[in-house]
Amino acid sequence: MKKGQSHLPDSVRWENGRLVILDQSELPIKVVYKELTCLDEVWEAIRQLEVRGAPAIGITVGYGICLATLNSKADSYEELWAEFQKNAAYLASSRPTAVNLFWALDRMSNKVQEMKGKAVSEIKQGLLAEADRIKEENDDLCRRIAENGFPLIKECTGVLTHCNAGPIATASQYGTALGPLILAHESGIPVKVYADETRPLNQGSRLTAWELQQIGVDVALICDNMAAAVMAQGRVQAVLVGCDRVACNGDVANKIGTYGVAILAKEHGIPFYVAGPTSSFDFSAQSGADIVIEERNPAEVTCGFGRRTAPEGIGVYNPAFDVTPAKYVTAFITEAGVIRPPFIDGLRKLTEKHL
Amino acid sequence: MKKGQSHLPDSVRWENGRLVILDQSELPIKVVYKELTCLDEVWEAIRQLEVRGAPAIGITVGYGICLATLNSKADSYEELWAEFQKNAAYLASSRPTAVNLFWALDRMSNKVQEMKGKAVSEIKQGLLAEADRIKEENDDLCRRIAENGFPLIKECTGVLTHCNAGPIATASQYGTALGPLILAHESGIPVKVYADETRPLNQGSRLTAWELQQIGVDVALICDNMAAAVMAQGRVQAVLVGCDRVACNGDVANKIGTYGVAILAKEHGIPFYVAGPTSSFDFSAQSGADIVIEERNPAEVTCGFGRRTAPEGIGVYNPAFDVTPAKYVTAFITEAGVIRPPFIDGLRKLTEKHL
Repeated sequence: MKKGQSHLPDSVRWENGRLVILDQSELPIKVVYKELTCLDEVWEAIRQLEVRGAPAIGITVGYGICLATLNSKADSYEELWAEFQKNAAYLASSRPTAVNLFWALDRMSNKVQEMKGKAVSEIKQGLLAEADRIKEENDDLCRRIAENGFPLIKECTGVLTHCNAGPIATASQYGTALGPLILAHESGIPVKVYADETRPLNQGSRLTAWELQQIGVDVALICDNMAAAVMAQGRVQAVLVGCDRVACNGDVANKIGTYGVAILAKEHGIPFYVAGPTSSFDFSAQSGADIVIEERNPAEVTCGFGRRTAPEGIGVYNPAFDVTPAKYVTAFITEAGVIRPPFIDGLRKLTEKHL
Repeated sequence: MKKGQSHLPDSVRWENGRLVILDQSELPIKVVYKELTCLDEVWEAIRQLEVRGAPAIGITVGYGICLATLNSKADSYEELWAEFQKNAAYLASSRPTAVNLFWALDRMSNKVQEMKGKAVSEIKQGLLAEADRIKEENDDLCRRIAENGFPLIKECTGVLTHCNAGPIATASQYGTALGPLILAHESGIPVKVYADETRPLNQGSRLTAWELQQIGVDVALICDNMAAAVMAQGRVQAVLVGCDRVACNGDVANKIGTYGVAILAKEHGIPFYVAGPTSSFDFSAQSGADIVIEERNPAEVTCGFGRRTAPEGIGVYNPAFDVTPAKYVTAFITEAGVIRPPFIDGLRKLTEKHL
């Protein structure tokens, strides 16, 4: 084990025939790893945000559908396939906006159909192997993002991050944006991470701060509005964030507040890096203008944490994410490599090679 | 009454021989106006932040020391003066960092000494008149800031503000930064105010949102990290904030987050106005580098909403305010007029005239 290495157990894992998850909804107050024993429990765990983060949801769905299939009493392909479809439709209803959920179900579904004609027991094992592959591919992808980003931040004494794009969101050891920082820690390079609280849902304080603390990374939690002061004081030499979706031209949709941080970084001459798999690039979106901004429940802002902090009936504007124009992005860190401007060219090169 | 006019009662006032305050610590959940009947209650009200905002504290102290003096059984100047000094020292211990507290006590103390030799009853009335003058001068000052700022924002459809520099902080009808916006509302000009929540103490959501709602100003509460998106969408055409202290060169110390908002405004080509009395200028500070940034209790960040939102033992950086370099300030709005760059010249002109 390298210096400073202290891994968290994966937030979703198949362990001795059991599906175990970290209940993220209890963090940071309680650390609860729990077994999901049936499809209903998998459905609830996704619905109640016990599992969150696109890759973690995909992996949970892969193993979740296995769980049901392994317990099936079906004795023919047709019977198994009918059951599978019913179960998949049920899981799909748990969080209908989660793209990775559908992606994982499609992949598992294709696998079943590929094995048509084979013995039921063989199909069951084939499905489990496919869920394992989804998990392994994701581990590999996160590790490569970490390795590709590491050279960009290894000279920094401090790096600022926003929201949560870490191990627990990806059910992996590295996550995306936090990967290079965790790798630095494992290599004995002390990089302090400034974690934005990330209102209104506080993914930064509840999740990022917690997981970095567990791993042993030096972390300072700040409120979102402190980022500018942190930069002015020379405390950070890079910003590293994840992404929800990237348009062809490099415009980035990510958690609300990302755009502001990007502007502050530019003003202080600090590089702004966006980490994510190449699958985050949405080739149907020419620019950020094609990305619709979702508005969420005002109550997240007015009474998010156990008590009301704003008057009843107050008007609220609560966009869930924002779009950072490509011009603020220094580079994208992907599993296939680092993409620098002009992004469209770099992207084309990498995707011809990898997608 | 002009169109749209709907005033709040002053947050500190002398009413039929009684000192009445709005208990700001109960906002926005409860609206409690309460009478302070003795010096101990005045001390507690300041200590417990029931009264907050530099001008409001000054006014409370002026009337508070009157309250004790009016009830005094002293029958000579010497006796009254001895009591006054004891009471003043006691009040001074309620919030030793509040500059206006000491300023008001000095002013009241000077008044007593001026009246040496006069009858006790006359001194008592003279003191009350002095407390009234502090209040009236402040009302006048806030009104002039409102009037001087009004032309700058009257064409805007939206204005963004940070923290709270409104009526309740100043025990007046206009406050400082909110004054021009309230005046616009009274003039029937619909300017929507975007109020930053202002973590960690949420003065924006608890106080600014509440008082603007009460007055009838159209307000949208946002989290601090949404300001950039609000600007990018063209929702605001100006930013208007208060100030704690301004250095000679125009560098502004104000609530944490102000500096970030100033950068975002510059990047979007939006004017950034700072409102405050000329007394906010600190001639002993040549630049922002002379202003020490106070760090506050980490618990404000980790458990500010009624429950813990970050892991136990997490590192926290919690600066109470930041310094916005003068180059980001479009203009200062003072009771003496609007000061544009070069600030040092404008300041010299105004202060020769007014200080």
